[in-house]
Amino acid sequence: MAIQQKLSLMIPGPTPVPEKVLHALSKHPIGHRSKEFQALVESTTKNLQWLHQTQNDVLTITGSGTAAMEAGIINTLSKGDKVICGENGKFGERWVKVAEEFGLEVIKINSQWGTPLNPEKFKELLEQDKQKEIKAVILTHSETSTGVINDLKTISSYISEHKTALSIVDCVTSLGACNVPVDEWNLDIVASGSQKGYMIPPGLSFISMSQKAWEAAENSNLPKFYLNLKSYRKSLRSNSNPYTPAVNLVFALDESLKMMREEGLENIFLRHTKHKLAISNAAKALNLELFASEKCLSPSITAIKTGEMDAEIFRKTIKNKFDILLAGGQDHLKGKIFRIGHLGYINDRDIITVLTAISNILLGMGKVTAQQAGEALLVANKYLE
Amino acid sequence: MAIQQKLSLMIPGPTPVPEKVLHALSKHPIGHRSKEFQALVESTTKNLQWLHQTQNDVLTITGSGTAAMEAGIINTLSKGDKVICGENGKFGERWVKVAEEFGLEVIKINSQWGTPLNPEKFKELLEQDKQKEIKAVILTHSETSTGVINDLKTISSYISEHKTALSIVDCVTSLGACNVPVDEWNLDIVASGSQKGYMIPPGLSFISMSQKAWEAAENSNLPKFYLNLKSYRKSLRSNSNPYTPAVNLVFALDESLKMMREEGLENIFLRHTKHKLAISNAAKALNLELFASEKCLSPSITAIKTGEMDAEIFRKTIKNKFDILLAGGQDHLKGKIFRIGHLGYINDRDIITVLTAISNILLGMGKVTAQQAGEALLVANKYLE
Repeated sequence: MAIQQKLSLMIPGPTPVPEKVLHALSKHPIGHRSKEFQALVESTTKNLQWLHQTQNDVLTITGSGTAAMEAGIINTLSKGDKVICGENGKFGERWVKVAEEFGLEVIKINSQWGTPLNPEKFKELLEQDKQKEIKAVILTHSETSTGVINDLKTISSYISEHKTALSIVDCVTSLGACNVPVDEWNLDIVASGSQKGYMIPPGLSFISMSQKAWEAAENSNLPKFYLNLKSYRKSLRSNSNPYTPAVNLVFALDESLKMMREEGLENIFLRHTKHKLAISNAAKALNLELFASEKCLSPSITAIKTGEMDAEIFRKTIKNKFDILLAGGQDHLKGKIFRIGHLGYINDRDIITVLTAISNILLGMGKVTAQQAGEALLVANKYLE
Repeated sequence: MAIQQKLSLMIPGPTPVPEKVLHALSKHPIGHRSKEFQALVESTTKNLQWLHQTQNDVLTITGSGTAAMEAGIINTLSKGDKVICGENGKFGERWVKVAEEFGLEVIKINSQWGTPLNPEKFKELLEQDKQKEIKAVILTHSETSTGVINDLKTISSYISEHKTALSIVDCVTSLGACNVPVDEWNLDIVASGSQKGYMIPPGLSFISMSQKAWEAAENSNLPKFYLNLKSYRKSLRSNSNPYTPAVNLVFALDESLKMMREEGLENIFLRHTKHKLAISNAAKALNLELFASEKCLSPSITAIKTGEMDAEIFRKTIKNKFDILLAGGQDHLKGKIFRIGHLGYINDRDIITVLTAISNILLGMGKVTAQQAGEALLVANKYLE
């Protein structure tokens, strides 16, 4: 049995939180209508724009990433609107459900779980739409359930060519892990959540809205109040919030965004790339099979097949023995894969630790030799240099 | 200029947070799908039921009190439904806006700001409704904007007699401050927020749903996803959440609910009553006029008129001199009143401190004599015994 209270979080969220962010979190709250809080809203908003590489409004909502995605959808669309939803995992499926709940007409573009969405299918549908009936394309950048990253850059270029359709993108596990240049890629609506690359606990979500998205909002007829983004935009003009925000999470956000600026976007992306390559290649050296196609591995999550081993038992063994929490498979993948979250506040030591823990269990089961375990480390080292 | 970082929060939220709750808040997050987190959901839910004095489901949402009120409305009603909204302050106004946004037909029962809603008006409308067209009565128990408490017990008894209509009640600044026996008063839907009597920072809200409310939910046709309470109920059956919850705020909630159980409901209510009486009577001894009718003073907020003095300047002076944050008046009351929040983690010392600070400013302005200032303290002491 592991000593309690020395948990290592290697799930795709909540992710580890730096000590100084935890300290910021535990400061005594202040009034959310005070000028001290206005200063925080101003600084976090500027840093959110930096992180999103955008001049667009970036709004902070108290709620999960799902709340932010729903806000993007219900603020810019109207009942009966035709939308394309990309669906190649659990989150893609969720956005279809949201769209259907609000009476949108959904055209699905599917791809098998573990494989990326084919951008050419988007191109085809968008080019065929001469009547400009398609109002939005809703998709997930990094599909947390499968560890696949979709080719957002190419898909969004096709959306831009369509001119009318908005892009509504779940960047929950890509923002702060890999390049998401909102302005350069013309992304209209980008949703993300605090417990991911942001390195703070869950409770806040973020939504970037382009000018085109705001224009669409003028015509949206779906009912909304708490998630009415116009209220947030109006309050933001005076660095405020329409409803009481999660003040202490904003303290934490301010601190973590400063840490991210110190590290710099390029370094953050490079770190995630190195970790992705170290984990995926070392896993192969351990005879483990990756769930996602190798050309589209998410920078934040690696999903690993366990073959005849029960992935849930494997996960529990690592938790009990080493107090490392890995994520399981969702829905039909439960027991078939485990997922390593490597986004946010993760350093090289965390990577070799999780790999060594995995090797150790496999060694104990006689699934790998000492030679293989050592070679897996060598492989990892190559990418961590 | 006051020394920085020794702020005393005397606003109606965020309210002061106990040290051990702040410590709980800054613990490292854990996985929200872990059995450790399930145990927290189980214990906080039981304690929430204790606080609400109910056997009903009490759901925890990541969002503000407004999100919880909206959830109550959109989960149980349908477009075109007729509802009564009680309106005697800023929050009453807000629930009218929510109801109208979702296409409900609103019958308003108004009362001037500072005066309570007249229960007999509710009785009359409900008795006249032989066709049972009124589907819900939406009202605010403690009106935070004016410091008035409405007679929820009587109004809810009339709603119960109607049989069909649901009660949807904003108890954001009453729950945890005065008696709100949900089962005894047959309250169907009760919304509250973490940054009030709960003594934790903002970010969580709570909603108690009666069996009758759940039955109404079966027929509701308003679109919702993030705030669809059926998803929360389903997850709660396995002590879980449909979307990633604000894990660290749940740590804080667990701690604060334990503190509340230790103190006991009767003691909590008595403490708030004593503080309300001490503040309101001492204010009168200082020649200050209460904004709310004296028979309906909220247990949590006292609104004070400043006559020819600008309330905003008065508030700023107390902030600069003593680092005590008071709330101002909202909308047309700005500059005319200030509001003292005395709910949650407030002890007798906080009460005499805020009174002394107010006396001090008034003394400096020559508005009261030393004799009066001393007598105001004597009056307060009488109620604090």
